[in-house]
Amino acid sequence: MTHFIGIDLGGTKIAGAVYDAASRHIVHRSTIPTQAHEGPDAVLARIAGHVRALAQGAGLELAAISGVGVGVPATFDWDTGTIWLIPNLPGDWLNKPAGAILGQHLNMPVHLINDARAFTLAEATLGAGKGYASVVGVTLGTGIGGGIVIDGRLYRGLTGAAGEFGHHTIDMHGLPDGSGNPGGWESLGSGPAIASIAAKFVMQGVTTGISGLAGYDLNKITPELILQAAEAGDAVAQDVLRRGGEYIGVGLANILIMLAPYCVVIGGGLARLGHWIHDPMMETVRQRVHTIPLDQVAIVPAALGGEAGVIGAAVWAQQRAEGKA
Amino acid sequence: MTHFIGIDLGGTKIAGAVYDAASRHIVHRSTIPTQAHEGPDAVLARIAGHVRALAQGAGLELAAISGVGVGVPATFDWDTGTIWLIPNLPGDWLNKPAGAILGQHLNMPVHLINDARAFTLAEATLGAGKGYASVVGVTLGTGIGGGIVIDGRLYRGLTGAAGEFGHHTIDMHGLPDGSGNPGGWESLGSGPAIASIAAKFVMQGVTTGISGLAGYDLNKITPELILQAAEAGDAVAQDVLRRGGEYIGVGLANILIMLAPYCVVIGGGLARLGHWIHDPMMETVRQRVHTIPLDQVAIVPAALGGEAGVIGAAVWAQQRAEGKA
Repeated sequence: MTHFIGIDLGGTKIAGAVYDAASRHIVHRSTIPTQAHEGPDAVLARIAGHVRALAQGAGLELAAISGVGVGVPATFDWDTGTIWLIPNLPGDWLNKPAGAILGQHLNMPVHLINDARAFTLAEATLGAGKGYASVVGVTLGTGIGGGIVIDGRLYRGLTGAAGEFGHHTIDMHGLPDGSGNPGGWESLGSGPAIASIAAKFVMQGVTTGISGLAGYDLNKITPELILQAAEAGDAVAQDVLRRGGEYIGVGLANILIMLAPYCVVIGGGLARLGHWIHDPMMETVRQRVHTIPLDQVAIVPAALGGEAGVIGAAVWAQQRAEGKA
Repeated sequence: MTHFIGIDLGGTKIAGAVYDAASRHIVHRSTIPTQAHEGPDAVLARIAGHVRALAQGAGLELAAISGVGVGVPATFDWDTGTIWLIPNLPGDWLNKPAGAILGQHLNMPVHLINDARAFTLAEATLGAGKGYASVVGVTLGTGIGGGIVIDGRLYRGLTGAAGEFGHHTIDMHGLPDGSGNPGGWESLGSGPAIASIAAKFVMQGVTTGISGLAGYDLNKITPELILQAAEAGDAVAQDVLRRGGEYIGVGLANILIMLAPYCVVIGGGLARLGHWIHDPMMETVRQRVHTIPLDQVAIVPAALGGEAGVIGAAVWAQQRAEGKA
């Protein structure tokens, strides 16, 4: 039996799981608070402690664990595990050799993986993309991330940046996205971007139920609140979601045209907006994609829910151990 | 010694080469006219005859050839070699089983490959992209094509369409490209698109030397003519090429962001426009790409010239024979 441990480091919690590579199942899982305010060294020590506790919880010696994968919402050096940027965690993470520190704590190989790439690898291996020759993952949320898995292996590209779909241009005359790129997908199709459309309408004095639901406070406008208004029949809210779905569709169309994947797995918070986003998204895809037969592409929702992160991290550790990555 | 024959089928000529897989060199080359007006069956018979002549010219029995690759400016079924669409060749090519017909003529495996994919595979294997872990090829011409090679192998995607970069959206509010997609890269950065900017200026009565050079005939405005005007100091022509370079840069930036390749090889007729295109293209890339360190990406001109097509087709036949594709 070969076991790997997958960790999903988030801003508020550290999720972990023990993964049995033979049965391809999680045999034990547990989540602890991140306590991110304590800073990088404390967080890394907490991750190491959690790995030990996970092994114990699964009834295994730590030495029986073949490797650890850690999904991080970050950019980093994939060879050394040194962090470049973790936007959402406080403290001085710059150049922190997180992979090496964890490896010393645990005396075993620890491999970092970007969280959106972990999502994709998990869904491609065990989730909605299982069995397809090529799988693209797309996470629609506060940002838009993703990953590319070809023949079961993560295609990383230079500095592991392949799959940073959120920053590619869909409207070259548009406003900048978070990376500074004008008209980047994320500047139009992310959660905050969609909320900003509603905020703009409210600020312009358009009559919409969104205003009242938000207590006449622009700060409280979220995609979920817009959804609430749309479901109550508010035409402006429905229009906002339709536009958001169209923007998402333009970027998704670009992925389909450039990569011609057999499967696209869509996850992230915006996926919960349901048909309000999905229908205009697919309509836009059908209008724009003429290079592949769309009826042969599986465009599917994620299947692993919140466990994709830990599974992807564990599968990454396995692939590294097996020399496949 | 293992030899493969690569064929590059064009609208006016059929180029061919005998490729020695051990030395990785072309040992014999020859080109004949396509005579495309004679129709598919005649063209396919001519290709078969040319393969025989190429073997003979290299001093080899036909039976000593291990496989034939044929680069076609087409979409087709990669499994069966059946043509779906050859836009630039007359006659009824629809559903013509070109690969099977050539295989029967020659009694050996014949593998079709899209011409832009052949360009990319050749440059990645023996040309400007040699030695890089991942290579994207981009051909800038009447259309914009391309291909993706990862770890030396062509990533085909569904129906071999991966790398159809020309049809991805860079300006979602723009006019349609050839595939019908509004604001597709090809609608802004291809040769005809750049010529159309100049034509628009001329039609609006803007004073430019382009008019005189074209003999006051809009039909005669080409990228080469605009280049001629630009080099003679015409500010409008220089502006047109700068805009073209910027449009090309937006699409190139998208490729870099989404795929993070170690190397991009740029070919096609527009590459000959030199610094007028290259400088604004790179300026745009630097403005838009913030997800990878650009100083670590090789963005390089194609190195194999007109021979990329035959080399790519031969390498494709080799990879198919070796079970790598």
